[in-house]
Amino acid sequence: MRLSELGEFGLIDLICRTIDNSKNLQYASWQKLLIGIGDDAAAWQTDDHIQLATTDTLVQNTHFNLDITPLEELGWKALAVNLSDIAAMGGIPKYALVSLALPGELKVDSISKFYNNMLHLAEQFEVAIVGGNIVAAPNIVINITVIGDSRGKAMLKRSTAFPGEQIAVTGYLGLPAAGLEMLKGKISLDLETSNILRQGYLKPMPKVAEGQILVEQGVKSAIDISDGLVIDLDHICEASKVNARIKMEQVPLHPIIKAVFPDPQQLALYGGEDYELLFTANKTIMHRAKQALNCPVTIIGEITEEKSPERVTAVDSKGNVIPYKKRGWEHFKDETSKA
Amino acid sequence: MRLSELGEFGLIDLICRTIDNSKNLQYASWQKLLIGIGDDAAAWQTDDHIQLATTDTLVQNTHFNLDITPLEELGWKALAVNLSDIAAMGGIPKYALVSLALPGELKVDSISKFYNNMLHLAEQFEVAIVGGNIVAAPNIVINITVIGDSRGKAMLKRSTAFPGEQIAVTGYLGLPAAGLEMLKGKISLDLETSNILRQGYLKPMPKVAEGQILVEQGVKSAIDISDGLVIDLDHICEASKVNARIKMEQVPLHPIIKAVFPDPQQLALYGGEDYELLFTANKTIMHRAKQALNCPVTIIGEITEEKSPERVTAVDSKGNVIPYKKRGWEHFKDETSKA
Repeated sequence: MRLSELGEFGLIDLICRTIDNSKNLQYASWQKLLIGIGDDAAAWQTDDHIQLATTDTLVQNTHFNLDITPLEELGWKALAVNLSDIAAMGGIPKYALVSLALPGELKVDSISKFYNNMLHLAEQFEVAIVGGNIVAAPNIVINITVIGDSRGKAMLKRSTAFPGEQIAVTGYLGLPAAGLEMLKGKISLDLETSNILRQGYLKPMPKVAEGQILVEQGVKSAIDISDGLVIDLDHICEASKVNARIKMEQVPLHPIIKAVFPDPQQLALYGGEDYELLFTANKTIMHRAKQALNCPVTIIGEITEEKSPERVTAVDSKGNVIPYKKRGWEHFKDETSKA
Repeated sequence: MRLSELGEFGLIDLICRTIDNSKNLQYASWQKLLIGIGDDAAAWQTDDHIQLATTDTLVQNTHFNLDITPLEELGWKALAVNLSDIAAMGGIPKYALVSLALPGELKVDSISKFYNNMLHLAEQFEVAIVGGNIVAAPNIVINITVIGDSRGKAMLKRSTAFPGEQIAVTGYLGLPAAGLEMLKGKISLDLETSNILRQGYLKPMPKVAEGQILVEQGVKSAIDISDGLVIDLDHICEASKVNARIKMEQVPLHPIIKAVFPDPQQLALYGGEDYELLFTANKTIMHRAKQALNCPVTIIGEITEEKSPERVTAVDSKGNVIPYKKRGWEHFKDETSKA
């Protein structure tokens, strides 16, 4: 079987099963592991704290295209997607390793600017860039690993959502996906609007402080929205063995995409790269979390018992079920990937 | 200026200078950092121990070619090069994150075997593979990050070699580079010899236990030989602001390459990918280290005062200086890279 037939998530399942045999050996690193493959970050116990680590890769012509997003401006985003994974665990990012595969014909100045762009974000979250490596390659590949600490013993996981809990999301959705549409030249807009869309796509702000507040308030389950709201909620449902029901009209569309794009719902549900936090909690904790967070929080639905293999159900304003589309970002499967 | 003109090491210098400005901000992650960019791994202080982290990348058609090295057999090596970096710090590897960029047409079975091959090595060193990520890409890129602990407070660094110290190397050199020559079809050999060469290239054994023994015996300065003996010794000299003088006839050539290859010295000095440890120490400590190590150790020269910009001098058996060739693995610079 080819990878294109199995797809990204099928491959991840296969890798997990392959590695599971090794877990049976029960040496110290496995014994101290709290969260392995399948959440936003790995977590393990050290003598005095819980360590988190996550890694993410941006590939030229898969995740970005230099015609649309110059290398100079990619540093921020490349780091942001990793900080967002730490945020989705409720953790504190500390150190980053940056690996670049680069073609020799690139301008040195662009690479310098790439680092400066990344450092602007690193400094905001007091992350130190402490290592990495540089290799020659025919196309650009950016791989960043971020290592951090949990806040105390609690973490946000994908596997801890329970039936009856409310589902909420920080901020507004759809802006980055709309920004990409615009940058691809599919829509032309006034300068101010196009700047906001461009920033939305290129400079996502990871919800690091927000993730830590969620942990403090007793929230247990979260994910960051990278693949798209529906597919990321599906990840929570799969890990927690539950279903989810969301009300389409409650999904917080970004005001700009509501005003400008013909189908803003599609962008908000399936666009991805929002890097907002999607989380679940019972009413009491949800109320507390909403009070504590310094950002918009919208309740968009609730977790239900596991009944259907189509784990996420969306209903329209009249309560009618909208046919489920498992879409969003998945690698290798041409029909679903954005490329 | 193009990257191909600046070269890998020039770019690393530039990145260090760019990041140095951020260090001035003096937030906690910087304050706790013990070793940043420019050694085999980064190291920082946590409340109760020193953490190490390293990352390395293998790129298709730069570091490997599927005609010569099938993906199935690359898992071991991809992890080994990272474990070797932890070994070069005298540390204990614990956790690995594995990021793969893969073309969709690859066979799923090959990827499965790639992981099994990697797990064989991981299990030997009790390393847990705890995360990573998978993305679609036109060519294969394997990025692995390994996180570990130091052994107590001591570490092996590149920057702590002193004039008068002896220079030593574990094991024998040149076998992996000879293996690559053979796999490229440049030489044909009997089955047994070719198997040894193939294993030498594809299954390097990182000197993890040996690195820890060096730390225990009081050795302070080491590097693993990945770029080639001369260039890696040059890295130590640069970081320690010293020169080095090696005796060519004392360099331990692997017996097989001595028997079979026309220019074994070239392979041992410049071939690279040996993943042996190159280290320096005064006579007393060197003697102790040699006694404690369960592997061949050869003294190949000594550290001298910093006098020449050509930091490594090699002399032949008559004491004549052999013209210095700064060669070995360097990315982007066509005249020096192996490709």
